[in-house]
Amino acid sequence: MNGAESLLRTLADAGVEVCFANPGTTELKLVGALEAVPQVRAVLGLFEGVVTGAADGYARMAGKPAATLLHLGPGLGHGLPNLHNARRANSPIVNIVGDHPTHHKSYDPPLESDIDTVARSLRGPVRRPENVAGVSQDAVSTLTEALEPPGQIATLIMPADVSWSDGVAADADGGRPVVLARPMPTVKPAVIKRIAELLRGQDESALIIGGPAGRAAGLCAASRIAAATGARVFLELHSARVEHGAGLPSFPHLGFYPDQVLRQLDGVRHVIVAGAPAPMAFFAYPGKPSCLVPDDAQTHVLAEVGEDATEALAALADLVASDHEPELVKPSRPAMPAGPLTVETWPAVIGALLPENAIVVDETISSGSGLHAATAGAPRHDVLQVCGGAMGGGMPLAIGAAVAAPHRPVIALEADGCAVYTLSALWTQARERLNITNVILNNRSYAILRQDWQRLGAGASDPHTNALLDLANPDIDFVGLARAFGVPGSRASTAEELAEQFNQAIAEPGPHLIEALIPPIA
Amino acid sequence: MNGAESLLRTLADAGVEVCFANPGTTELKLVGALEAVPQVRAVLGLFEGVVTGAADGYARMAGKPAATLLHLGPGLGHGLPNLHNARRANSPIVNIVGDHPTHHKSYDPPLESDIDTVARSLRGPVRRPENVAGVSQDAVSTLTEALEPPGQIATLIMPADVSWSDGVAADADGGRPVVLARPMPTVKPAVIKRIAELLRGQDESALIIGGPAGRAAGLCAASRIAAATGARVFLELHSARVEHGAGLPSFPHLGFYPDQVLRQLDGVRHVIVAGAPAPMAFFAYPGKPSCLVPDDAQTHVLAEVGEDATEALAALADLVASDHEPELVKPSRPAMPAGPLTVETWPAVIGALLPENAIVVDETISSGSGLHAATAGAPRHDVLQVCGGAMGGGMPLAIGAAVAAPHRPVIALEADGCAVYTLSALWTQARERLNITNVILNNRSYAILRQDWQRLGAGASDPHTNALLDLANPDIDFVGLARAFGVPGSRASTAEELAEQFNQAIAEPGPHLIEALIPPIA
Repeated sequence: MNGAESLLRTLADAGVEVCFANPGTTELKLVGALEAVPQVRAVLGLFEGVVTGAADGYARMAGKPAATLLHLGPGLGHGLPNLHNARRANSPIVNIVGDHPTHHKSYDPPLESDIDTVARSLRGPVRRPENVAGVSQDAVSTLTEALEPPGQIATLIMPADVSWSDGVAADADGGRPVVLARPMPTVKPAVIKRIAELLRGQDESALIIGGPAGRAAGLCAASRIAAATGARVFLELHSARVEHGAGLPSFPHLGFYPDQVLRQLDGVRHVIVAGAPAPMAFFAYPGKPSCLVPDDAQTHVLAEVGEDATEALAALADLVASDHEPELVKPSRPAMPAGPLTVETWPAVIGALLPENAIVVDETISSGSGLHAATAGAPRHDVLQVCGGAMGGGMPLAIGAAVAAPHRPVIALEADGCAVYTLSALWTQARERLNITNVILNNRSYAILRQDWQRLGAGASDPHTNALLDLANPDIDFVGLARAFGVPGSRASTAEELAEQFNQAIAEPGPHLIEALIPPIA
Repeated sequence: MNGAESLLRTLADAGVEVCFANPGTTELKLVGALEAVPQVRAVLGLFEGVVTGAADGYARMAGKPAATLLHLGPGLGHGLPNLHNARRANSPIVNIVGDHPTHHKSYDPPLESDIDTVARSLRGPVRRPENVAGVSQDAVSTLTEALEPPGQIATLIMPADVSWSDGVAADADGGRPVVLARPMPTVKPAVIKRIAELLRGQDESALIIGGPAGRAAGLCAASRIAAATGARVFLELHSARVEHGAGLPSFPHLGFYPDQVLRQLDGVRHVIVAGAPAPMAFFAYPGKPSCLVPDDAQTHVLAEVGEDATEALAALADLVASDHEPELVKPSRPAMPAGPLTVETWPAVIGALLPENAIVVDETISSGSGLHAATAGAPRHDVLQVCGGAMGGGMPLAIGAAVAAPHRPVIALEADGCAVYTLSALWTQARERLNITNVILNNRSYAILRQDWQRLGAGASDPHTNALLDLANPDIDFVGLARAFGVPGSRASTAEELAEQFNQAIAEPGPHLIEALIPPIA
């Protein structure tokens, strides 16, 4: 057995089921190994940003890592922004990057570059087996490290000669390698008790919840705490996976802009974080603080990112809210709007029609501020957001989610400027016949930059006249792009059209794209 | 004047005329500065791979750097593969990356990442002005370093607070900063004399020419040397810019595969390199050498990469070939083929119809082996190749070339798998009304991987059955993609169709795309 097959067999035995791949010559033996090890499903992306974003989405929904397969330094580079997003989502990924053989690298051939350094910029471990005998152990270590709470990008660089060298007996691995996700560290009872005392006091408190605490158990515990103590509860700005909809408590996300967050936290004296970082500004603005904890408030950590915030919240609720039930949102749908689509009406259409058990991918940027409220009473669903701010995460996330949960409808809500980054995700959606409804919110501009232009006083002129912020001239035809990649497409400019097209897309198997034309901001 | 304007004014005063940009919030003051400094033309790319590839193409044709404008670490990541290609082409680029203010970075906000380390992986200098007073000098230093022979990627990281801070008087810079490209170091006469002696001997020699020596003066000197000494002359595998066509000498490129190069150099005892690395394999294969200098041959350096190889070749020719004229290719066109397009016939159509004074961008990979010969007698033109092997270089290179040379027709010849990487280049081509004819060679596969599958024995199966090497299912409609981005498109499956469509595309202003369907390799 060669090194490539040793790697794939080890990963398969340890439970890795999917490899999102864009291979090149240096990875061809790994492509051969994917044929020989059919337990690992190979999914081709035409661009490594699709590959890495899909691995992120898969990890969020499957709760375990997929492998990637990237071609040398340029493949890692193309995949880097969505690996950044995955890192910020704390998604575990076994990130496999092929490399030249060591003897070949010394000649500095055209594709040679510093893979190790770039991979280390992701702050996860980077391994490079030196020979075929070491592959299986490095694979186990990489997988183990990927699963290290809260989850990380663990990179395995496979030199081509290690892939192609024989030297491992077919039964060498003996049996299933034991790769257990280390449980998240629990929070000390004293910490929980101290925060319970704060909450019993007279001061106003806010509770910021993040990571896995955004799922039902964490939400319910937070709701009980709020009911008993009056604490304000917020979700972190962008959640890797949050459960939402009827039958669950619903909390707002922290705002994107400093002023929004300072309003949300106005009067609060204790900011308690549970699996989330302390409130901070996404971008810096002149004269605005980066830390958004009010000046006269203290920050208290109930659970660090990577600690078991859900369990800590439940224990805290038992201390302070033993008599309280969570406040659950009743099923309700927004009234179906009529007339032209706007940033107000499109979310209502989605809220009115969201199918049962959906997975909603949210890369709506400035167009999506109404989405959370509009879907609060819709059937229970998962929401995946782009956590690292790198554009183009959404449609690849949808691929990974759909591969992990093939029987659930996936709705990818995409800002136009972001969607352009990873368009070929549509091709993979078509090839794999994934049940994804892509809705492109097309306002023909980098609308958030127009907003920030005014906020920053970036220039004297009207931002609507600046060509660098404008996505018209020419207008992009997203319906044509979808069809060219094998995905049925349609265009909606009214709520009625969006509703009809959305219902049809959900009813039919396979991917669809709806281009929703919304007016540019004034 | 704020830091952003100080940067732009300094670059403008030093002769930088173009900034290829995809800005975000952290770069908005630089967008404002681009409005205030109209001497620098701002060209928007919808993806940073388009931005950086365009800067590469611009540098090759303008002979001086453009600036990029990239958004934080993810923007640099998206742009990294084409910066890798630019590095391998020795293209000078002033690579501007926006960053958070230093005080903001310490909170580790979602978009924070290690920009400096990733930029350093490009092996060029990385500067980061600490305050507004230092911006102008850092800009001059960055530009100077970019121009350091043979040219490099010099990165300037601009913290947003340095961009937005005021503090430079409007006339502070005093006058035009002096930024002179340092002349390429000349080769010592003793080196030239020693190589002249070798060439006068009985042993067979090969001369490998690269970099600027691929232009007329270098080619003519090499041809004289060949005529006088019988030396075989080859161009390096992928040239950043080579002049080609009637009235010039024509030399073959070194081959892509080790066996090809070993055949090209069979019997050679002296391999003389002039502005090119010694012959090496692009990829490693089991049992094949990486160094492709024959075992019984010696390598001799006439000019290192970055030294003045053209001048050295001219001096060498004067020593060994004072009585010899260069052998110039006479004008000639291939016969116009008829019937289905194949890897043999499509290059003949291009060779038959190539317009005067064209710039040909070649990212044809396995489909393009016949191109060089088919265009040797066509009107004199420049050929730009993708030098670093990172896919998706071609259509962005064409943008940069067209911006640098607006009155020349640009022909971008693209393999299908590569074209998908940077599709939104078409949008920039449309917006800027660039005279680019994109020809997509669509064989619906990663054909080179099918070839390498057999070469490597990557798996037991027929590579035509492996889905990871297959770009059909669904077929990609490149005509639809072009139209969706505002570029007229058409499809050709015969030589007659390609000829008609190519003539029409050249005759009409603005960009066009022709999808040329060629059969997958057997």
